[in-house]
Parts: sequence; structure tokens; C-alpha cells
Amino acid sequence: MTIVPLTIPALRAAYAGGLPPSQIIEQVYARIDEVADPNIFLHLLDKAEVLKAAADLGAYDPDKPLWGVPFAVKDNIDVAGTPTTAACPAFAFDATEDAFVVAKLKEAGALVIGKTNLDQFATGLVGVRTPYGAPKNSIDPEIVPGGSSGGSGVSVGHGIVSFSLGTDTAGSGRVPAALNNIVGLKPSLGSLSASGMVPACRTLDTISIFALTVEDAYAAFQVAAQYDAADSYARSFDTPDLTQAPVAPVIGIPSAATIRFSGDKVQEASFAATVALLRASGADIREVDFSPLYDIADMLYYGAWVAERYAAIEELITENPEALHPVTLQIIGAGADLSAADTFNGIYRLKDLIREAEPHLEDIDMLCVPTIPTFHTVAELEADPIGPNSDFGTYTNFVNLMDMCGIAVPAPARADGRPGSVTFLAPAGEDAKVAATATLIEAAGKRNLGATDWPFTAPDLAPSLPDAGTFEIAVCGAHMSGLALNNQLTKLGGIFLRKDQSAPDYRFYALAGAGPARPGMVRVAPGTGVAVQLEIWSLPIEKFGHFMQLIPSPLGIGTVLLADGSCVQGFICESIGAEGGEDISALADWRKYIART
Amino acid sequence: MTIVPLTIPALRAAYAGGLPPSQIIEQVYARIDEVADPNIFLHLLDKAEVLKAAADLGAYDPDKPLWGVPFAVKDNIDVAGTPTTAACPAFAFDATEDAFVVAKLKEAGALVIGKTNLDQFATGLVGVRTPYGAPKNSIDPEIVPGGSSGGSGVSVGHGIVSFSLGTDTAGSGRVPAALNNIVGLKPSLGSLSASGMVPACRTLDTISIFALTVEDAYAAFQVAAQYDAADSYARSFDTPDLTQAPVAPVIGIPSAATIRFSGDKVQEASFAATVALLRASGADIREVDFSPLYDIADMLYYGAWVAERYAAIEELITENPEALHPVTLQIIGAGADLSAADTFNGIYRLKDLIREAEPHLEDIDMLCVPTIPTFHTVAELEADPIGPNSDFGTYTNFVNLMDMCGIAVPAPARADGRPGSVTFLAPAGEDAKVAATATLIEAAGKRNLGATDWPFTAPDLAPSLPDAGTFEIAVCGAHMSGLALNNQLTKLGGIFLRKDQSAPDYRFYALAGAGPARPGMVRVAPGTGVAVQLEIWSLPIEKFGHFMQLIPSPLGIGTVLLADGSCVQGFICESIGAEGGEDISALADWRKYIART
Repeated sequence: MTIVPLTIPALRAAYAGGLPPSQIIEQVYARIDEVADPNIFLHLLDKAEVLKAAADLGAYDPDKPLWGVPFAVKDNIDVAGTPTTAACPAFAFDATEDAFVVAKLKEAGALVIGKTNLDQFATGLVGVRTPYGAPKNSIDPEIVPGGSSGGSGVSVGHGIVSFSLGTDTAGSGRVPAALNNIVGLKPSLGSLSASGMVPACRTLDTISIFALTVEDAYAAFQVAAQYDAADSYARSFDTPDLTQAPVAPVIGIPSAATIRFSGDKVQEASFAATVALLRASGADIREVDFSPLYDIADMLYYGAWVAERYAAIEELITENPEALHPVTLQIIGAGADLSAADTFNGIYRLKDLIREAEPHLEDIDMLCVPTIPTFHTVAELEADPIGPNSDFGTYTNFVNLMDMCGIAVPAPARADGRPGSVTFLAPAGEDAKVAATATLIEAAGKRNLGATDWPFTAPDLAPSLPDAGTFEIAVCGAHMSGLALNNQLTKLGGIFLRKDQSAPDYRFYALAGAGPARPGMVRVAPGTGVAVQLEIWSLPIEKFGHFMQLIPSPLGIGTVLLADGSCVQGFICESIGAEGGEDISALADWRKYIART
Repeated sequence: MTIVPLTIPALRAAYAGGLPPSQIIEQVYARIDEVADPNIFLHLLDKAEVLKAAADLGAYDPDKPLWGVPFAVKDNIDVAGTPTTAACPAFAFDATEDAFVVAKLKEAGALVIGKTNLDQFATGLVGVRTPYGAPKNSIDPEIVPGGSSGGSGVSVGHGIVSFSLGTDTAGSGRVPAALNNIVGLKPSLGSLSASGMVPACRTLDTISIFALTVEDAYAAFQVAAQYDAADSYARSFDTPDLTQAPVAPVIGIPSAATIRFSGDKVQEASFAATVALLRASGADIREVDFSPLYDIADMLYYGAWVAERYAAIEELITENPEALHPVTLQIIGAGADLSAADTFNGIYRLKDLIREAEPHLEDIDMLCVPTIPTFHTVAELEADPIGPNSDFGTYTNFVNLMDMCGIAVPAPARADGRPGSVTFLAPAGEDAKVAATATLIEAAGKRNLGATDWPFTAPDLAPSLPDAGTFEIAVCGAHMSGLALNNQLTKLGGIFLRKDQSAPDYRFYALAGAGPARPGMVRVAPGTGVAVQLEIWSLPIEKFGHFMQLIPSPLGIGTVLLADGSCVQGFICESIGAEGGEDISALADWRKYIART
């Protein structure tokens, strides 16, 4: 049997070429047998059921973005006809409906394979706090699988499924990605409905997505991110198509004084190498004091939010505490001792810490952090079930409390061969921006996907553009890149698109008058003028009025004719205003003029 | 002594005319003596102190919007050099710094007169829960003064001060306004800094403003609404100048099935009369099912939020409970019994209720409600300290939980002579819109301000404009009112501002070419052209880019010189584009040209 790499583009190409989905399903179950880890799935669908679901899809339909794509679901998310256990047998119930997100994925053609193991009640970052026995890490069985979405991470790492659903409250959608050499997309809170998901901390939870590539994770996210009025925490965000990484973003990294690697020099070197890649790609790297972020992170398990986990299972934990995993009981049980006043004091403290962090974050587009400070083994967790777990949360625990979105992405392998991983983080709603930036890193160097021998192939993305609704404008003077007034464009979100040239229909003047030197393009009869050097910039359309207000007489914005016969809006000049200026048509290039003066 | 009505415009006119502020201060203290209610102020500044503060202002400075304007401060807000009691002697401390908002008001020239009585710890809507003895209602001493900002409401009602600061968590900034025939502005949460204010529920509190008129309340609000990074709950909102009421707003009122008047037929008739006024003014009135809003209101005192009040005074209430007013102790003491899980369950329930309310509110611009369902007497409160208080909160308690702003405004007097009052409510950030709408109602019919004999005078407001950020544009052709392209402006929210005339510096052409006939203004040497008839329109600035995309060559937007020497952005024309057109400078008016053709 030919093995098809389970990336979505590869699958779609195979299906478009006539491959029946039954063959992929056979591959999935063969791979499960080959991996032979009985603790990945808490419930595996019968192959026959999946074959039936695939048959029900009918003929290949390219309009269904996930047609025939196999996926796994963390076992705290409902799939109709299967039990939901949250890794607690006493809690288990038979789900009669699909979770909202599962339903949307199925509607887009995706095929559920099974329900995956987890740290009980999604409480943990290690993947071993489960009474069902822990799944093994897909790369190195001595290392923990990561959690709480352990089985979801491992199933993708092994190439059993194309993607999987996890959940993320403290980092459960990111830590397993770092440990299994895969992508972990942690969406903006509320963008994926929580209907049909067992809550951990309802104010902070989100379903998350693991996949082999950023492109695949984002494709599943786009399908799943539909507003669900039945979830009171749902919010509506745009999910534009993924484009090339933004040009020259400002990226914050933990400052040298506050970065933490728990003594792991190899991880430190790996992160430094990734930062060097970002810098080489044009990013402006700024060091950020992470102290307030660590203080925020501490609130998740040592503050009032533990009581959300307690509230979610209050009946079970008070009536039948021995039904819980002992470590889970110890952590969540602490929620019983907190008062309402403690809770509000915690909420105030969080607000204060977020305010304290703001000045450190206001000038940056996103953060880039190591997904984990270091690796921890199963043996370490057996000796100390809490410490290494907390360590894993170093760069993840603050994220949901700060209402950020993020994506964990494989970086080039570490010097010792273990997977590299960094996470990009930005305010809620910027899912597309962090994903686009992450594509820069996943494309660096040759590497295989997860624990498979499938090589990474770079996606074919649209050019990076600003948000929908932009306005192209031709500039010919001090607004060009690097010149005196360029920041009037960049401050309004302007983006350089290309260099261009006007039609040979203009006289070009250095205008007289005070203030910064400015040129003027005065249109003359076709072919009787010169072709002026231009730059074409894009401005968010809603900012254009602000830009217009900065334009003094005799300049205006009108139609500029381009050399190729097309036209674009841009600077024009009233003829009367050019009087008294210097005719610099012979140069036809403002940079040449200012170099000369 | 001539009495100056204490509205801010009247005061400014008097000061501009040479009146020394000392005379106003004398008037204030004379009025205090005349009112002779010892329970309004918990701390009154010595007249000499206020005279000194006035002298320190120096000569009249019209640039200080509150120069020489006397105001009072609720005694849970710090004024340097005076005690802050929150109406609890055991809690009292000497404030060494002004609260942030007080400092901003003083910087604008306002003069603090004293600290006002309140329901202890701002817990109540009645004004009688104070160990210092309740102030008397300014209109009718049998009626409660309203609370919790009782002294602040009464001091304005009596015309002792021009405005006062209250606070508002449940309605404390609105109920006293309804009971004293004045305006109560409840700002968007976070727009006024809480630095230097004793918290009640930190997540829901705001300082509020009482004044005799909407214009005055909003003027003080504009001064006070400055972002304070030291307050973690501070948010930054635009506070544009007050304009005429919006044209034809969609206003929601409680549906017939859910409106509540506690049996008060006179109040019911008064509210119906106000709604009729709104309808007559062009508002589109829609009935809204208030059931989910009442459910939200119930959460404030019967849900987890009582624990915020408890958390605010936890040390005092646990160590020295008898220091509290017995009613206050009963209410706040209940916060001790709530757990962290209760709190989160309350937070979830609130989210669910807000989601439930959303469909009822999504198509309306704002709500209009009776500020109170009915009036309650001091005697009633003595008999039942809780019931009538809860009744007052009918239309106020849900507001802060839903992150709305609002303004309580006097409506025409009821049939029995008691003051009418309605409150306009809108989502946070719409303070200017609700205030502008409120001016419609305060101007209806003849009435006096508060309990004074000063007649209401309508403010001189700018024409109603769309939201902050507009762009003025001169049009000279088919974009003018009623002409072929005028809908390009109106569809984008354009508003006609005025007719105008260009400087005599243009030649005016009817351009050649296909499509709708268009004129072009080509600028020539100063004074050598004609003055073209123009219309000046306003566009929302964020829509300008969309408008610009509709403008074809050879037209553009640039600077148009006006007859009075000023300039405005508007249509310009490239000279080359006018070639082949008809010179219609002799007409200099597009309407005349098209009438002729």
C-alpha cells in the first residue's frame, strides 16, 4: 500500500486523483496497529463505522475543505454515539450529540477516528495524569507525551490522523505540540464554540487544534470557527485566509534577564537560533520584561481560577472524591477552600498585573517564546507530579488569562535531535497573523512532520496583505520608504506593495514653499511628459481619511496613470501650485533629487 | 445680592462679565444656611478655604472650562485635606491626595465645597442608610433623598453647587437624580478613574456626575474623563463635544408586558408622555422584553457580586461588625457565605443572561426607561429598609453588569407635581449619544432646575453629527444635495453642514466625457478667477476612503480655498482634464449650469 502523507493538501491531491477514502482509512488503522500504543485512544471507532461515514460523503467534493480528512477528538469533547470520559470513569457519559465544533468539521467532510486520552479533567500539562495509562510520546517514549491533550498530540505526531482537537486552558493545546514536533493552534477565546466540551475553567477554556503543519491547523480552524450563539462565551472573529508572513513585524521575546530554560542550554541555543531566523527574515526583535507575565501565569493554579475547575465538577468531587486521580484531586480539591472574596481579589489582582504588563507589550506586534523551557521525562513526573508540570506552563499559563491567541510551531531540531518549538502569541483576534508568522519558522531547514518520515512541504500562500478593505495609493515623494513622511503611512497601518512607474504623462516638480521638501506631479498631454518613479502602498481603507487630512495644498489625491496603462489613486498636484517650483522632470525620481540636494 | 443660577454657562457669563468668584462662594454658603439641612455634607470646607482656592485661580480664564464652578464630592471619594468616611466613622481616614477625578476637575478650575453624605459604603439606593442622619430630599422632605449618593443629589437639587460627584454601582448615580429633579450621568465603566474612590464592587463601580442640566453634567464629564493608567479598570473612550440629539434614533422601551411601575399610575402616565415626546421628535420606538434584564438586575444583590462589597471591607466587617449600619451589615455580611465556586457560577450565569438579552437589544440604538418605577417615603423605608430599595433598582441594577452607560434626565413634571425622570442607556462608549438624546427631553416644556426657581435654558449645541471623527469636504457638482451623485455621500453617512463659496481663485468647467455631467474647479492665480458655489458636507472619517474610490480622473480631492480665507478639503481638477470642457466660470454655480442645460 502506498502511504499518503496525511497533510490536507496531500490528501486532497490524492482524492482529486481518484484515491478512495477507504484506502486512507485503511492506512489510519494500519498505522494505529503499527504504533501499538493502547493508551492513545480511550475510544476508537470501529473501522467499519468510519468506512461507513466516508461512504456517506459520496463523491469527492473539493468544496468541502476537509473532505475525507481523518481527525481525532480529545475525550472531553462530545462525539455523538461515543462516551465522553474526561479521563474519569465515574464522570463518563454517552454523548448523544456532536459538540458544535465537531459538527462543523464533519460538515466540511472530516472523519472522526476516535476519542483521545488526556490529563483527567484537562488538568495538567504532562499527559500522564490519567487512570487509563498514559500514551507514549511519539518521538521518545521516555519523555512525557505532554498534556492535557496528550492523546491528541501523540496521534498527530505519529501521523495516525491529519489533525486532532485538544483543549487549552493553561497550555494543553501547545505543550503536546512542542513534545511531539507538531503544530498546536490555540485560538482566540470564544472563536471556537465550547458547546459540547467539558469545562475546566469556563472563562479561560478553548478547544484547540493539533496538526502536522500550520496550514492544516489553520484550515481546520477556519472551518471550526463559526459563531455559536448557544455558547455565552462565544465571540465572532474574522478568520481570513492564511497569507505569507507579515513583513518586518515587531516581535517581543523574553528579555535576557527574565528568560527561563530551567537549566537547559540546548533549549536556550535552539530558541536563540529561531530568533536569529526571525531577525534574518526582517523581524524587529525587542526584548520584553517577562516578570509581570510570570506573575499572571502564577494566578492560574495558585489563584482563584482553581475554583472554576472545582465548580465544574463540584458534585463529583464532594460526593465521590476517590473517583479522581490523586494528583487531580489534590489540585482541584484546593478550590473548595476559596471564598467569593478571594475570587474577586484574584480578579482585581489579575487586572492589576495585566495593566502592569501593558507598557511592555504596547509597541510589539506579537510575542515569540519557547513553547516549553525544557523537556521532562515520565520518570521525573513519577518522582514529582507537580514541579515539572508547573515548569511546562512557564510560557503558556499567562496566555489565556491575558486573552491572547497563539500557535506553537516546530522550529529546527535541537542540537541533541529533540524537536525545537516556539510559540507566537498576540491579542485575541490575531489568529491569522500569528499563524502566518509561524509559517516562516516551520519552513526553516529540512525536517519531517511529527514523528513520521514525511518531509515538510511549504504551503502556497497568498502574498501578505493587511486586513480586508485596503486602499492602494501611489506616492512619489517624501512618503516613500525610509523618507521623511513615510511614517505618516506606516503609523496608519500602511504597507509597501511594490515599486512602479507612472505613464510618461507628467511634469515633475520640486515644489516651492516652507516645510519638508515635496514633489508635485502635474499631468500633461499623453506622452509629452516623463515617467515618474513611484511606490505603491496599501492603506486600511478606514484610515484613508486620516491620511488625507495630512495633505496640504497644492497637493491632492486623484488618479495617477501608470506605465502599464492601468491607474491607481495617488498624489496629484494643481498646476498653479507648481509655479515657482523647480522642474525636475529630467530626474523623474524624488530619491535622485534629494540625493542631489 | 443678585443670585446667579449655578449652571456653568450662567457662571461663565457672569465671570466673563467681571463677577468675582468670591461672590459665588458667598452665594453657595448663604444657600447652605438657607437650606439648613445639616445632613447634606459630612464635611463642609471653611468658606475661607474655598475663597483661598478661588483666589489661587487668579484672573478669569475662559480656557478653563470649570473656572470658579463650585462642586461637591460624595464622601467615598478622596479630597486632599478632608476625611473620607464612606459614611462609616470606624472606616474614616484623612485623605492626603485628591482622587484622580477630583484633581482633574480642580485643574479645570472647579472649587470643592464639601463632602456629601451617602448610604454607607455606597450600599443602597435610598440615602437613609447613614449613621450621620439622612439628608432631606430637596423637593419633598417626606420622600427619601435617594442614594447611595444622597447628599450629592440633594446639594445639586438645592442649587448649592453646580454639580457633584456621586458613584454608581447599582444606580446610585441615577436614583437621586430622579428624586431631586436633576441630571445623573452614569459614565461608561472605566471612563472616570476610580483612583481615590472607596470601592463597592470594583468590577462595576464608576464615579458619576449630578448636575442641573445635561450640558453641565457632560461638561464636567469631559473634564474628568481622562485615562488613568494607575487604575487597572480604566479604559479610554472618546468624549466628543455634545451635539444636538441624533436624528431618528431607534429607542427601546420596556414592553407593555414587562414594564413595572409598582402600581404607580401617575409614573406610568409620565413615562408614556415622555415616550410620546420622543416619538414626536422622530424617534423610532420599539418595545423590548425586559425579562432578561430583570434577571440580570437580580444578580447584583442576590448573586456573587455582594462578595465584592464584602471583599472591599473584609477586615472591618470581620473584626468590628457593629461599626456598620445594621442594614448595611445585613446586606454585605451575606458576602461571607459565598464560595469561589458560587462566584464563578454567578459569572457564568451573568454571561448566559447577557447572551439571552442580546437578541432583544441588537436592533436598537439605546434604551429609554423610567429612572425609578415609583417614589418611596422615608416612613416606608423605616418600615421596610430593603423592599423599597430593591424597587428603586428595577431599571438601574442591570446596567453596570451589562457594561452600559446612561444618563437620568428630568422629564416634564408628573400630574401630581413630582419630578418626571427617564434614563437613556446604551453600550459603553456611547456617553455622548445618550446625553445628546437626553437634551431632547430636558428641553420639553417649561421647568425649573432641581428644587430651585431657576428656569431651564436650552443649551446651544452643535448640529448633530455622526460619531467622532468626521471629515469636511467641499463639493461643487453632482454631489450636492438632491443632485445625481448626492447618495454617494448620504449612503456613507454624509451630513450636509452648510452652503459656502470658494475664494475667487478658480476657473469652473463642465468637463467633457461620458457618464454623469461633472464640473471641475481649476485653481488659477489669486483673485483672477471666480467664486464657485459650494456645499460643505461631513463624512465619517473612516468612510472617506470608500468615497475617494468613487472619484474618477481628472478629479481629485485636495485643498479648496474658501471665500473667507479659510480652506477645506474638497474636489479639485487637474488642468489637463479641463481641456475640451466648457468654461462655465461666468455661472460659477453647478445648479445654474444644469438648470440651463
